[in-house]
Amino acid sequence: MKRIVMIGSGNVATSLAHALRGRCQLVQVYSRRMEHARQLADAVGAEPVDSAAALVTDADAYVVAVADDAIAGIVDASPPTDGLWLHTSGSVPMSVFAGRRSRYGVLYPLQSFSRDLLVDLSRVHFFVEGSSAAVTAQIAAFARCFLSEKVTVADSRQRCILHLAAVFACNFANHMWTLAADVMSRDGLPFDAMLPLIESTVEKLHHLSPSQSQTGPAARGDEAVMRRHLSMLHGDEEAIYRMLSQSIMNHKARK
Amino acid sequence: MKRIVMIGSGNVATSLAHALRGRCQLVQVYSRRMEHARQLADAVGAEPVDSAAALVTDADAYVVAVADDAIAGIVDASPPTDGLWLHTSGSVPMSVFAGRRSRYGVLYPLQSFSRDLLVDLSRVHFFVEGSSAAVTAQIAAFARCFLSEKVTVADSRQRCILHLAAVFACNFANHMWTLAADVMSRDGLPFDAMLPLIESTVEKLHHLSPSQSQTGPAARGDEAVMRRHLSMLHGDEEAIYRMLSQSIMNHKARK
Repeated sequence: MKRIVMIGSGNVATSLAHALRGRCQLVQVYSRRMEHARQLADAVGAEPVDSAAALVTDADAYVVAVADDAIAGIVDASPPTDGLWLHTSGSVPMSVFAGRRSRYGVLYPLQSFSRDLLVDLSRVHFFVEGSSAAVTAQIAAFARCFLSEKVTVADSRQRCILHLAAVFACNFANHMWTLAADVMSRDGLPFDAMLPLIESTVEKLHHLSPSQSQTGPAARGDEAVMRRHLSMLHGDEEAIYRMLSQSIMNHKARK
Repeated sequence: MKRIVMIGSGNVATSLAHALRGRCQLVQVYSRRMEHARQLADAVGAEPVDSAAALVTDADAYVVAVADDAIAGIVDASPPTDGLWLHTSGSVPMSVFAGRRSRYGVLYPLQSFSRDLLVDLSRVHFFVEGSSAAVTAQIAAFARCFLSEKVTVADSRQRCILHLAAVFACNFANHMWTLAADVMSRDGLPFDAMLPLIESTVEKLHHLSPSQSQTGPAARGDEAVMRRHLSMLHGDEEAIYRMLSQSIMNHKARK
């Protein structure tokens, strides 16, 4: 697959386009807003377009990296092609393409993309799925060749589970750091002081399951400390402290 | 400070005793249960004791690394000494020693200690506090010399805040990984596949604040994905997903 059309100009599209630049020919970059299309297209040497009807029909692959609910509409507005259509969503089933295109699939990077930080995709785990065994193999080979060595075939249900688990493992864990930073900053303490502890907590995951390595007042059932902590909190922070401590104790009791 | 008595035989006492072994003389290890005292004492070349009354009176420092509510009782049961008394708790104010001993303080490692994994203390941040400026300086010098280069003076209130923040940053984040592992294992997916994503999420903390780097359906306000995720959850997991998503949205709205 040499000639690629990138549909989208957000965080995922930008990371993918930069990773593919120089390895494939990026023919076009599509965005609803021409200035966004042009910004990414200029950076990767492609033609910017702001109309799905203007997409070329002879690309090898069309990578759809847009909001979940915009995928079907863009496919429908595009001219018919024989190329391979791929979306990158964790939540949308592959069947969104069924009846719309003949060869299609999913290229899902298990990663969280921020506007402010470009991700090195060679370290990212990609989960792929295709409309036939041959297409699945083609997508996997494409991902291995141009993006990352970590490529695994996963069906739409497994991909949904991965996406849900990533919300807990990444979005929610990150929110815990936000709350820790809030608590510290109210007392003039810099969040940086917490980084060595966070890193050693992650390091333990290479040796122990997260459940095995759980520590802290809730895991110990230390009610005096939990009461003292709760007296220092209010609002969301207090409610979250209560609920997560209870959940840790429930988890411990079930083991 | 050369002659040290270690009071306690749990995770913190064990890590500290191993770090100090060969650098100080570990005179005694105390535990309520002689077999526990003996196990650690044998490993670090000290005398095991199971009675506070049997503690030597000529040590330079007495490090009390026991459960929070056992600290005062052990001090009271020990013979009077001129040595420096230190506890290692995140939650107990230094004043627990007031009226009980003349020179005292706190040596708090901002770290989570697991039974199954010995911690390299040279990478740990220690927060110290003393009963006078001279004692504070003495504790800081002791920690820098024998334990870690990262030593900061913090009063009892700041230490409480650090401990509370660490519960969010470490215990609660770890519980998010436990829940992610549960979700994945129900579908036969190995938790290891999530590690690169977790590590890159932590890496971002070196460049952006956790609030700046927050991503995911709640941060985007993507209600369709949140509804789909909630339909795959129940019990604690569902309640936590709901509460944390709401808290992420509240946080976003306040910014």
